[in-house]
Amino acid sequence: MKTPGEFELIARLCAGLRMSRRTLLGPGDDCAVLARPQYPQLFTIDSMVEGVHFKLRWFPPAVLGARSLEVNLSDVAAMGGLPTACVVNLGVRRALGAAFFDRLYGGLRARAKTAGVDIVGGNITRADRLSITVAVVGELPDAALGRDAARVGDEIFVTGTLGDAAAGWRILDGQLEARGAARRYLIDRFLSPTARLAAGARLARMRPAPAAIDVSDGLLQDLGHICERSRVGATVDPGALPLSPAYRAVMGTDRSLALGGGEDYELLFCLRPGHDLRALSRTLGVRVTRIGLITRGRGVRVAGLRGPVRAGFDQLKTRG
Amino acid sequence: MKTPGEFELIARLCAGLRMSRRTLLGPGDDCAVLARPQYPQLFTIDSMVEGVHFKLRWFPPAVLGARSLEVNLSDVAAMGGLPTACVVNLGVRRALGAAFFDRLYGGLRARAKTAGVDIVGGNITRADRLSITVAVVGELPDAALGRDAARVGDEIFVTGTLGDAAAGWRILDGQLEARGAARRYLIDRFLSPTARLAAGARLARMRPAPAAIDVSDGLLQDLGHICERSRVGATVDPGALPLSPAYRAVMGTDRSLALGGGEDYELLFCLRPGHDLRALSRTLGVRVTRIGLITRGRGVRVAGLRGPVRAGFDQLKTRG
Repeated sequence: MKTPGEFELIARLCAGLRMSRRTLLGPGDDCAVLARPQYPQLFTIDSMVEGVHFKLRWFPPAVLGARSLEVNLSDVAAMGGLPTACVVNLGVRRALGAAFFDRLYGGLRARAKTAGVDIVGGNITRADRLSITVAVVGELPDAALGRDAARVGDEIFVTGTLGDAAAGWRILDGQLEARGAARRYLIDRFLSPTARLAAGARLARMRPAPAAIDVSDGLLQDLGHICERSRVGATVDPGALPLSPAYRAVMGTDRSLALGGGEDYELLFCLRPGHDLRALSRTLGVRVTRIGLITRGRGVRVAGLRGPVRAGFDQLKTRG
Repeated sequence: MKTPGEFELIARLCAGLRMSRRTLLGPGDDCAVLARPQYPQLFTIDSMVEGVHFKLRWFPPAVLGARSLEVNLSDVAAMGGLPTACVVNLGVRRALGAAFFDRLYGGLRARAKTAGVDIVGGNITRADRLSITVAVVGELPDAALGRDAARVGDEIFVTGTLGDAAAGWRILDGQLEARGAARRYLIDRFLSPTARLAAGARLARMRPAPAAIDVSDGLLQDLGHICERSRVGATVDPGALPLSPAYRAVMGTDRSLALGGGEDYELLFCLRPGHDLRALSRTLGVRVTRIGLITRGRGVRVAGLRGPVRAGFDQLKTRG
């Protein structure tokens, strides 16, 4: 059961939402109704919880709203799909007023618009901590970028740079010192990640369809998921990891956050050998870097370290 | 970022999940992939939060798991649709171990199976309170049962009986005294509601397509949603409300919970006049009761009370 205040907030947040022609019935009924899609459907859910994934003082509300959608868009990107619609469940605590949620939804709506995603419904519940849970559906016009498609001999690539968001998180949390432009850049990479939708869609047109995953839990962890599902091993060259100038300025040669830190929402993918890096970057619309090889065996190895590694281990504090 | 324990729990809960042929790729990748549906799609989300919607000591974990899906199925029923797949976001607090979630998921899986719903993905986050957020997609083979389809002169019907779940909730919460079979019945109606999927699907084949909503927030509140969306008024005859013997045993002639209490998950719908009640009950597979009329004007009136009413007001404590 909802309180009158909750109904008011729902009405307020949904006011003026525009729907594409794909949405036959938007918010305000028991369910949204979407036109029959042209292609197979994608379906995913993700959640951001105050005190677990973020502290409220870190985030302008609009940035938080946009990010709650972005982390789901990244899952769609990692399948090579096109996001089309979302529903939003807000856990609302008392101290946060309507103006806060106006701004939060403002950010969410703005990002939904640029991504071509309709916000077709939602729900509000009381809670002790603010939480934003978003479920997204999308379409898959081409092949799926499954985690199970890696084969021995594939080269491993990643878009953008790694470790920035983890560094930004640690700066915000007071665990890491940084100043000026580097500080701002790293924090921004945590607050405002960019789902690699265009790159994912272009990868999905390649044959054979590449294995892919988004780097949300950390490179080694996420590469580990690919290895497990594909029943292969992997070796990562730590010297090859793409590091931003800001990361280098703050972390020096310590690659632990690039190897083990999450939240970058870059795409990690595997291709048959022989791709030209420049051509590939051009095709995908984003800089890509070759960082390792898919091997026989099981588990992820970091060149220069003994044995398979796990994210979070001290041995990840490699310097090179 | 997830902890190793969270990955373990996800793997444990997804182990052995069976998918229908509609699901091309189930849990374990960035998104689930569903075959292109035959009909327009339904999409909804709902959440149950410990301390807001329930106390843990009230629920066997399996019953809680089943209910978290059921409240979403009820939204699909209220559109006249067929649920097909769901994703589940669990907010997990530390004191609850793997055995608890095994049982919770056991109940969820069992209900998903009988409803023909694939559990295609999910997510786990740490939290202070247990929360279960489920997003469901479905198909709409016939017309949608919109909240905006009521017209002046329509008769208002409801399936089953009203007020039982609200009474059960109050018994569990210590606000209402009850004993024996009536106590068990009312509590069970709160713990284990039944989404009226078959009745909703049959209503969706009728022409003109009826207005409908599920009674989750309370009859007056939910009927108010229909009136608002349809730009009509409504009059409810409190003497006509379907009350269970258990409700009468505990509440006597007090109809306040039948009028204002929620969580029954019965279907409230509006039909052009002239339907035979017995034939209608037979067609829908559940007992239905005529409880009022759609009128000109705005707002919901209860016959015998002055002016439009709001759920929760003291004037709802009508006795008849």
